[in-house]
Amino acid sequence: MQKLVELSGFTRIRRVAPIANDTHGGRAKCLQRLIRLDLPVPRTVALSFDAVQNIAAGDLPDMVALLKAFGDRPLVSVRPSSQDPDWGGPGAMLNIGMNNARHAELVESHGEEAANALYLRFVQSFAINVARLDPEMFELDRGLGRDALTAALDAYEAETEEYFPQDPCIQLAEVLRSMARAWGSTTARLLRQAKGAPADAGLGLVVQQMVFGVGPGESGAGVVQFVDPATGKKQITGRFLGQSQGRDALRATTGAIYLTRDDRGPSLEMKCPELFETLREYGDLCRVKLREEMQIEFTVENSALHILDAVRVQRSARASVRIAVDLANKGVISPQEAVLRIEPRSLSELLHPQIDPTGKPDVFLQGIAASPGAASGKIVFSSTAAQASEARGEACILVRRETTTEDIRGMHAANGVLTERGGVTSHAAVIARGIGLPCVVGAGDMRLNTKEKTLETVQGHIFHEGDIITLDGTAGQALAGAAEMLDPGLGDAFQTLMGWANDACDIEIRANADTPADAQVARNFDAHGIGLCRTEHMFFEENRLSVMREMIFTDDPDERAAALERLLPMQREDFKKLFKIMQGLPVCIRLLDPPLHEFLPSGRTGLRDLSDAMGLPLSDVTRRVESLSEFNPMLGMRGVRLGITVPEIYDMQARAIFEATIEANRGGAPVVPEIMIPLVSAKKEVELVKSRIDGVAAAVRNEQGADFNYSLGVMVETPRAALRAHEIAQHSAFLSFGTNDLTQMTYGLSRDDAGRFMGDYVNKGVFAEDPFHILDTEGVGELLTIGAERGRQANKDIVLSMCGEHGGNPESIAFCRAAGFDYVSCSPYRVPVARLAAAHLALK
Amino acid sequence: MQKLVELSGFTRIRRVAPIANDTHGGRAKCLQRLIRLDLPVPRTVALSFDAVQNIAAGDLPDMVALLKAFGDRPLVSVRPSSQDPDWGGPGAMLNIGMNNARHAELVESHGEEAANALYLRFVQSFAINVARLDPEMFELDRGLGRDALTAALDAYEAETEEYFPQDPCIQLAEVLRSMARAWGSTTARLLRQAKGAPADAGLGLVVQQMVFGVGPGESGAGVVQFVDPATGKKQITGRFLGQSQGRDALRATTGAIYLTRDDRGPSLEMKCPELFETLREYGDLCRVKLREEMQIEFTVENSALHILDAVRVQRSARASVRIAVDLANKGVISPQEAVLRIEPRSLSELLHPQIDPTGKPDVFLQGIAASPGAASGKIVFSSTAAQASEARGEACILVRRETTTEDIRGMHAANGVLTERGGVTSHAAVIARGIGLPCVVGAGDMRLNTKEKTLETVQGHIFHEGDIITLDGTAGQALAGAAEMLDPGLGDAFQTLMGWANDACDIEIRANADTPADAQVARNFDAHGIGLCRTEHMFFEENRLSVMREMIFTDDPDERAAALERLLPMQREDFKKLFKIMQGLPVCIRLLDPPLHEFLPSGRTGLRDLSDAMGLPLSDVTRRVESLSEFNPMLGMRGVRLGITVPEIYDMQARAIFEATIEANRGGAPVVPEIMIPLVSAKKEVELVKSRIDGVAAAVRNEQGADFNYSLGVMVETPRAALRAHEIAQHSAFLSFGTNDLTQMTYGLSRDDAGRFMGDYVNKGVFAEDPFHILDTEGVGELLTIGAERGRQANKDIVLSMCGEHGGNPESIAFCRAAGFDYVSCSPYRVPVARLAAAHLALK
Repeated sequence: MQKLVELSGFTRIRRVAPIANDTHGGRAKCLQRLIRLDLPVPRTVALSFDAVQNIAAGDLPDMVALLKAFGDRPLVSVRPSSQDPDWGGPGAMLNIGMNNARHAELVESHGEEAANALYLRFVQSFAINVARLDPEMFELDRGLGRDALTAALDAYEAETEEYFPQDPCIQLAEVLRSMARAWGSTTARLLRQAKGAPADAGLGLVVQQMVFGVGPGESGAGVVQFVDPATGKKQITGRFLGQSQGRDALRATTGAIYLTRDDRGPSLEMKCPELFETLREYGDLCRVKLREEMQIEFTVENSALHILDAVRVQRSARASVRIAVDLANKGVISPQEAVLRIEPRSLSELLHPQIDPTGKPDVFLQGIAASPGAASGKIVFSSTAAQASEARGEACILVRRETTTEDIRGMHAANGVLTERGGVTSHAAVIARGIGLPCVVGAGDMRLNTKEKTLETVQGHIFHEGDIITLDGTAGQALAGAAEMLDPGLGDAFQTLMGWANDACDIEIRANADTPADAQVARNFDAHGIGLCRTEHMFFEENRLSVMREMIFTDDPDERAAALERLLPMQREDFKKLFKIMQGLPVCIRLLDPPLHEFLPSGRTGLRDLSDAMGLPLSDVTRRVESLSEFNPMLGMRGVRLGITVPEIYDMQARAIFEATIEANRGGAPVVPEIMIPLVSAKKEVELVKSRIDGVAAAVRNEQGADFNYSLGVMVETPRAALRAHEIAQHSAFLSFGTNDLTQMTYGLSRDDAGRFMGDYVNKGVFAEDPFHILDTEGVGELLTIGAERGRQANKDIVLSMCGEHGGNPESIAFCRAAGFDYVSCSPYRVPVARLAAAHLALK
Repeated sequence: MQKLVELSGFTRIRRVAPIANDTHGGRAKCLQRLIRLDLPVPRTVALSFDAVQNIAAGDLPDMVALLKAFGDRPLVSVRPSSQDPDWGGPGAMLNIGMNNARHAELVESHGEEAANALYLRFVQSFAINVARLDPEMFELDRGLGRDALTAALDAYEAETEEYFPQDPCIQLAEVLRSMARAWGSTTARLLRQAKGAPADAGLGLVVQQMVFGVGPGESGAGVVQFVDPATGKKQITGRFLGQSQGRDALRATTGAIYLTRDDRGPSLEMKCPELFETLREYGDLCRVKLREEMQIEFTVENSALHILDAVRVQRSARASVRIAVDLANKGVISPQEAVLRIEPRSLSELLHPQIDPTGKPDVFLQGIAASPGAASGKIVFSSTAAQASEARGEACILVRRETTTEDIRGMHAANGVLTERGGVTSHAAVIARGIGLPCVVGAGDMRLNTKEKTLETVQGHIFHEGDIITLDGTAGQALAGAAEMLDPGLGDAFQTLMGWANDACDIEIRANADTPADAQVARNFDAHGIGLCRTEHMFFEENRLSVMREMIFTDDPDERAAALERLLPMQREDFKKLFKIMQGLPVCIRLLDPPLHEFLPSGRTGLRDLSDAMGLPLSDVTRRVESLSEFNPMLGMRGVRLGITVPEIYDMQARAIFEATIEANRGGAPVVPEIMIPLVSAKKEVELVKSRIDGVAAAVRNEQGADFNYSLGVMVETPRAALRAHEIAQHSAFLSFGTNDLTQMTYGLSRDDAGRFMGDYVNKGVFAEDPFHILDTEGVGELLTIGAERGRQANKDIVLSMCGEHGGNPESIAFCRAAGFDYVSCSPYRVPVARLAAAHLALK
């Protein structure tokens, strides 16, 4: 029997014979649920994906039989029913079946005005959406009278040279065919694929008996939902419009009323309290039975309530969290399901202030969205100016051509960073994400004049230092003036959800944190430790930089030792602070990594200042700085190469770590520092560094008469380190894959220079994704797998992890989990995203 | 019986009971051969490696029995017998057994003078080498009389507080023990390991009955060889000294005579023609039976000839080739053995002029030997000056801090290049090897003052522009003035040997050649084709560079097309010339690879010139040049990234190749150009470039109505290309591994910047070898293997090769052969080395 109905191409939706999402679409499925809840849903028929595909190919079901399902001479609507409502579909068509005869009848039964409205609506939408006529000819400026109807019918005839179709079977057939074909258009396909639909996503259609909403007695239509879509708080919102159909109430400029008396103004609750109460009961029923907050579309016909449709309430990320947690707290869904209902990436929206979407943004520059969140402040063009601004307590936006390590302090002082050059993994972007600073990079349309202190755009805008702008790091835009903001959404609901996510996680999430401030954010987000502490940033504070430079400048071992002696207590203090904040948790510290020349000034003024400070001739200083410059600094004298060539630096760092450990151990739960060697490419490098560091540990233990534990491991960031992991693992307690550098080397591609063509490359599909953004599982991923396997082969207890920008991405976490890694480490502000993604993976 | 003799620790060398190199050493083995040839060799006993090791440990053989092997109260000598004569060993000791009693007897039988000489020689060498007394006390300034003897004996007694040992058994025991222990000293071990000896190399000793060479009748000693050790030509050379022992004739300042009358002066041939004739016969016998040119040590005692020893004639690389070819031509050895006798690396000595080793070099600077050969010329400090110098017909040496692509023309104009910075794979080194130019890099002790145009060294030497210096690229030295030179040794013997090597080869050897001059060298060396033609160098000629810059500067597609239109005929001419020289052989052309900014000037003057030339404001030019600059050019916008972002450039190059192919095909054997895409990291890059190039080919075929073949392949130089070779191979006719870049990326190490620490790294054993010099078979090698296997998996007909600096190294060739590669490609001047190395591998 069921089979037969299917063969006819459509299915009457009833309580029995289940309808599935993946054959008839989400709307059909949802309507069956409403029917099963005994909600007053008008008679409805579902056309399956296959049926609609056949229609597109010209093979229609029996129209007479289809219409007969709705009784004698019915009016019907058709709505799309795709598998996921987000994938879109053609708009609803109402009042199919209207013709001159039916119009005449309805004039009698419902009055002239209602009959005109019903017919006119159908003619208009048929003309525009099915016959594809010029919409301007069918605008509503002629009112809803008989004249307007006649004009519309005449216009249709004039354009098509046919009278408006009177046969309901033909009307319905044309509507179905038109909708089925619209689904196959290129535009529609691209739009839904952008939302994640597969290439072969199907469309179902739902044909429903019309309820008029116009005519005698209390009639009208409305939409209601029971939560605030921006915050997720319980609150009845919606509109009702008398003598209307569909979603007219939402579009109406006059006449629509609120649902609840809580809103100021006339409301359905006041006008028809019983009806309102029934709606509220339906909402509660849906919440419990459909396990979701639904938006309900209803029509009142002559005081009788009909439920036409219900869809999931569209909502902000913040509201999603609140709704899911509330549903779980009420026992409607499990905490696990609440966790699974939140898209991990959507959390970044919560973790930073946002530009109020209801405001009118004055965008003057579009760049690359490099670090989410928004901030307003005065324009400054140098790190010095940013620090001065901070000292004055004024918010500022640092605007640079690009940033370098010299700008770190300026970035910490600024409220946002805007750069002309760079991509999502440029220096500015990486640092900004690390410290949770809104950042826009690669704004190629801007022209900086650092002499005049102006920022111009090729479109002709000019801003001066001190002018206020707003940066939208989520959208990659710069706005003139101070835009309206929404606060970050870290409420109770967020905390509850994160707790549940943490319970579900089976891979640890650590944070990359270089400063006590970073560490505090990490701790606040319950990171399982610090996975990467980059010590180089510690040397950029004013009083240290000069000592660092002395150390770099001297060729005399004694002078170098003296400079390092002065740096030691400063480093020790850094680590003590970090250890205190992270008490009881592991802290992985990477030894000095960047080329030494990064610590030296580059401009003429900087060189002159340095020559003054050091009491050396300018020519000497220039010469030394030049001799330290490199063709490809990324591939030069850095990382462990520095540690082997100038071993005193690592000695000092190890000593600072150990001395800080002893002090931290006195204060509470013991700290186990993890020392990480960067840029290794050969086993012997590890052996040499390890033997010196073990020596320093022995010396410190001896001097202080105190014991402590530590572990030593390697940052795997060259392809060779991955290939030779079985050798390297023999001397390492852990291997942490630094996928930023590993990606650079695997592709032969500098992240700082990739911006010039990466957009082009991704657009042309040369790379499916920017590999600095989404881990390249094929190339870089194979090296990770090789490294992990070989590392474990040689040392079964080895701890494996991924640090760097990819660490916070759901895709990377899935990869690391599958590869059996112990943890991932990411920017502190990415920890919640990473934790939620990990929880998803564990729960799925 | 034999067993018993062995147990006693020594073996009398006879015709029977074969002596082996690896148990008794090369000298013992050779002496047995001489005995088997019936040469008059005095009675000789061999001590095996084991026996000598026992002696060093204090366990001596029976001295009485040993001495008894030589009859009654003999005098004997002891000489070292290591497995390979090159591994060294302690010096010979003569006249062991001399004591007061024997002295008195010899005064009677041989006269006072002879007896004194014999005893004194022994006392001296025993005191110095065995008792380790101060050599100054035993110098020969007291003559050879009785007083001198007494003084030596007294000095010995005074120093040791013992009388000079009189018991021959004790004397011999002490000598043996001393020699055995000297072999184990650290210095000796390091010296022989530097020559390739294994750590456990053994020492044998040879004890031989003394023939006096002093005394009545015609007596004396000499050394003879039958070839010129510098050229390998047949020529009897050597010295004879009457009343002497051992090799005294070679050291004597007066009294020694020549062997043959061909030399000007008194000769053995004149003095004792029969004796000379016998020596000549012995030489012929040795040549044929020992299959080698031997140097023979002989002693004449009372007119009787004794042959004490024979060793392989020490020889230059040039002489090696001549001798091996002559032996093969005479049928003494096979051509295959001749090929195997030449160490491939030694050939580079032949291919370039050399500094005459007999001159007195005035070395003022030591750097890294980057490209072999020597050249003298006037110092110039800029490429412009080098070109001016060439125009004047004056040899010049280009001295630079480092070179860039802008210096290419200057390097072509210069006779040698000296740079302050860089390592063996820096720009200067690579280009210099490519064009066979002597080059020294990384001369850190030099200070360039380009304003004053002086070169100073930290040792205080000062040179001005125009001063003449000599560069020794083989030794990595700079010499003041013009040193004496030897011409390169590419004679008939060399050609014959190369022919034989070619017959044996089972892997093809191609050359890297960018210019017609390079290609001609390659053709002269019988390269099997061009494996890498780098097209970028073609754009540096003055008239092209300006067009290239116009192309780079414009953003307007029409202007770019116009510039490329002008470059097209120039490129076509380049390829026509190459194809003509290489007619009938494959030519693999790499499409443009370097970042575009390499074609732009960098200094202030250059920028101003460019702004004048282009009629653009200096600020515009500066801005554009800056915008093209990159943080890590090696990892930036280059290679196929350029080809995809500005596809018109590759279009033009492909068209030039195809049009040149059609013209070349008209003139003779058809050319099959191979087009190579650089810096690929993803399959899609190949697809995009391939479809455009196929399009250009179709267009050219159509326009010209002529057909041609070509193949398209990929340069595998990123780790990712190796890992994804199975995808890339689907669209590639060949994969050529660019091990320079692949090494850089696998290690995360720029070859231009590695110089600063590579020396330190290799010294400390962090890297066993400089991986830019010797292929890293573990890391980079695994990527080659992976790439080759996956490439073949996807495309069984794929042609595999290695190009780049490693291609010419014997180790790399062994690797490529084992991996089943079709060819290697190297600098034209490395082709003979590579071919010989490949022949060795095939023959072994």
